[in-house]
Amino acid sequence: MPKQQSAISPTQTEDFPEWYQQAVRAADLAENSPVPGCMVIKPWGYALWENMQARLDAMFKETGHRNAYFPLLIPKSYLEREAEHVEGFAKECAVVTHHRLVKGPDGGLIPDPEAKLQEPFVIRPTSETIIGEMYARWVQSWRDLPILINQWANVMRWELRTRLFLRTTEFLWQEGHTAHETAEEAREETMKMLDVYVRFVEDYAAVPVIKGYKSPAERFAGAVDTYSIEAMMGDRKALQAGTSHFLGQNFAKACGIKFLGRSNTEEFAWTTSWGMSTRMIGAIVMTHGDDDGVVMPPRVAPAHVVIMPIVRDDTRDKVNEYVQSVAAQLRAMKYDDRPLAVEVDQRDVRSKKWDWIRKGVPVRLEIGARDVDGGVVTMARRDQESSQTAAVSRDQLGAAILAALDEIQRNCLERAKAHRAAHTHRITNKDDFIAFFTPKNAEKPEIHGGFAISPWCGGAECEAWAKKELKVTIRCIPLESEHEDGAAQCVICGKPATANPVFAKSY
Amino acid sequence: MPKQQSAISPTQTEDFPEWYQQAVRAADLAENSPVPGCMVIKPWGYALWENMQARLDAMFKETGHRNAYFPLLIPKSYLEREAEHVEGFAKECAVVTHHRLVKGPDGGLIPDPEAKLQEPFVIRPTSETIIGEMYARWVQSWRDLPILINQWANVMRWELRTRLFLRTTEFLWQEGHTAHETAEEAREETMKMLDVYVRFVEDYAAVPVIKGYKSPAERFAGAVDTYSIEAMMGDRKALQAGTSHFLGQNFAKACGIKFLGRSNTEEFAWTTSWGMSTRMIGAIVMTHGDDDGVVMPPRVAPAHVVIMPIVRDDTRDKVNEYVQSVAAQLRAMKYDDRPLAVEVDQRDVRSKKWDWIRKGVPVRLEIGARDVDGGVVTMARRDQESSQTAAVSRDQLGAAILAALDEIQRNCLERAKAHRAAHTHRITNKDDFIAFFTPKNAEKPEIHGGFAISPWCGGAECEAWAKKELKVTIRCIPLESEHEDGAAQCVICGKPATANPVFAKSY
Repeated sequence: MPKQQSAISPTQTEDFPEWYQQAVRAADLAENSPVPGCMVIKPWGYALWENMQARLDAMFKETGHRNAYFPLLIPKSYLEREAEHVEGFAKECAVVTHHRLVKGPDGGLIPDPEAKLQEPFVIRPTSETIIGEMYARWVQSWRDLPILINQWANVMRWELRTRLFLRTTEFLWQEGHTAHETAEEAREETMKMLDVYVRFVEDYAAVPVIKGYKSPAERFAGAVDTYSIEAMMGDRKALQAGTSHFLGQNFAKACGIKFLGRSNTEEFAWTTSWGMSTRMIGAIVMTHGDDDGVVMPPRVAPAHVVIMPIVRDDTRDKVNEYVQSVAAQLRAMKYDDRPLAVEVDQRDVRSKKWDWIRKGVPVRLEIGARDVDGGVVTMARRDQESSQTAAVSRDQLGAAILAALDEIQRNCLERAKAHRAAHTHRITNKDDFIAFFTPKNAEKPEIHGGFAISPWCGGAECEAWAKKELKVTIRCIPLESEHEDGAAQCVICGKPATANPVFAKSY
Repeated sequence: MPKQQSAISPTQTEDFPEWYQQAVRAADLAENSPVPGCMVIKPWGYALWENMQARLDAMFKETGHRNAYFPLLIPKSYLEREAEHVEGFAKECAVVTHHRLVKGPDGGLIPDPEAKLQEPFVIRPTSETIIGEMYARWVQSWRDLPILINQWANVMRWELRTRLFLRTTEFLWQEGHTAHETAEEAREETMKMLDVYVRFVEDYAAVPVIKGYKSPAERFAGAVDTYSIEAMMGDRKALQAGTSHFLGQNFAKACGIKFLGRSNTEEFAWTTSWGMSTRMIGAIVMTHGDDDGVVMPPRVAPAHVVIMPIVRDDTRDKVNEYVQSVAAQLRAMKYDDRPLAVEVDQRDVRSKKWDWIRKGVPVRLEIGARDVDGGVVTMARRDQESSQTAAVSRDQLGAAILAALDEIQRNCLERAKAHRAAHTHRITNKDDFIAFFTPKNAEKPEIHGGFAISPWCGGAECEAWAKKELKVTIRCIPLESEHEDGAAQCVICGKPATANPVFAKSY
């Protein structure tokens, strides 16, 4: 059967980056704002974020963390305390220099020269230094440890080339910051939170990930070790979906987080930080989306079900009454511990059905006069052909919807896993490696390659070569991979290999 | 019986402002940060805010609103679009002028002159202009209205004299922004949201409020009408707990929110905005707090119950096992649709009981070996004397706690109402008015006066006189008050009165 015209143009294979922009727009998730690099997250996108937040937040609390809130502004001098950290962030900081505007000579407002700040502030790009400063005040003795705190916040990293959700100057995230008595405890925390991310991303966002550690070149600025989870998008590029950092004593020393230890000696704390952001919304779009638009995994979907009444003037009252009763029936139900979120679209427009397909709502119900007469509801699913519908009787509707949601959630994950498996290869030969990452068709440069699991000598030069020549980086060294014993050779230089990283192009 | 020494020093009557700072600190709600005017909201304070957010957010959604997120930064030119608005906010704006730091001549970082922004941005003090800009893009036809959106966000208004929660440079809040087809609809929305605030503040925060409209001098910069809810604090000053603004077409005209109306003519939309902030935490502290510290109204309390095991080395295991079983029993219960939040304080410190009194947890349970043997739990309430305890059997514990929480919630509101009633007076004579607002004891300047309901001519001069001479302002003109028909005389100038405002000193 020939594929019908798609709801999103261009299609993924025609132009993936443009498909992404159009899919985000068509689903009404977000749009660019007049503030350069800053997006507006619209209600449908924000509701997705709220659902993600609720799940993640519950997981953080189950693992003993509490939320708090720290200042938006960071004194410039704090940023300077950790050498690598400042190197990593100074180049992209929004700088606050004045605290007042006044009328200028030409009548417009200018920053008031009289209100110039003695020391400029930056808008937090991340909060290690300001939170570290507070922890230094709070920690006196080993009894004050651990500190297990998370913050939900906006952060800002000035970007010149931006893409909705994936790379924006301002974004929303959570940043966990913990301080511990021992290195072991901090390392344990780092891995525990990485596992929380794996669980959230796979079980809720339905995005399969590889967890691993970063090469030195890809570490967070100031970290001893950075761990990440990496997902394969629809165009086979990698997206880092979350990171967890073991910061050693670097920030404790920079910020003065020290305590009187059990043996009565002064010690520096061991800290971690970990974060996940609105970027994850981009990952959901690019993992599950198809040529008809976004597909929402039910467990985080802004709405589970949309009901679309189909009325004529003479059937309006009858249909609407039935619709309200179906909506009430469904709203009294729960899916995955959350009340079933039901939209009723009363608009009198032709695009109704396709609007909801593009928005990715998992289950669509159409109700017309014939359905009312037959005591049924016409049901369709986002993971099936748009024309495929089933008439479901009222008394079976609840069970049918719950089963469909479960199946869609499972299908999202399984399809993404199959896609990843199909495009992940063990590559040990340099020519193959180069060919894998070189587009076969120069007109469609965006979909090619995938994940190459290749032996690597551990050298920064080989890594730099891949980045420069192929725009390929080491996404992570999978924790579950076997360490190389030197029998295999580095795919780039041929010297004995020590690890098997995932190489890929990335967002 | 002589009052025992209080847990907070000074007491409220000794020095209310200092009591407030100490009570906030002793409860570990927040503290000042090294960033001037910005606070750190600590886990106990943030949990209170989370509970407030959850309730308010549910109310916003029940009334048809959705959340979204708009940029932190506002182009300077946007602020200039509405004349009164810019007048109101330009003086206290944090100004972003650069997007990068570089090494300066002396080695430290300086704002990079090469990265100076063409147009400076301000950190949002409120978002009418940036949100208005987006609404202008979204609205074409009357069919696109109403837009009913809320945003949870941080905002910044540079303050030189700050007080935790009450007046800080950065604070957290929600800001609702709606656009409507008609003035009537926008006015209805303005009042609906004012009523949501009344319901939340009285039913959840247990703070009684007077709802009314502001005099022109006290209106939001750019509003046609500002409505507020005003509460009386422990020192008899007023605190504005929430505001709802009817903005008329002012911002629609400034931002270009126009649409093709039903009669095919181009019209400007009618907008509203409404907000409540972390200031409300200060209101809870100053309404319910006493000389032993904070008192948390159960419906928003960070925890409902604390369990304090009292152990000796030989009873530790037995007691802790019982404690865990009591905690599990309670955590399986719900209060007010929220799982019962139970803290278990295992610390081996003497200050345990008083720490929790100062934190204001509604119900305290002590469990020692004797309780275990007797199958009971020793229960105490924050709204009763600290020494008053009752032995409650395990099988009656759940019911006893739920009843206690209900009573404490009710008592909080009733006590606050009684306090307000005792210090609200109808004052019609100028000498009485002056005396009411003049401290009798110069050494305790902070607790005196209260609310004066006094006839007013409506003149800005009388209002200005009260502000200048007595530091007293018109808090609001109660909606339920009778309009003066001119029979009464203005308490200040003696001319015929037109309204009966609440006059008070305020935060």
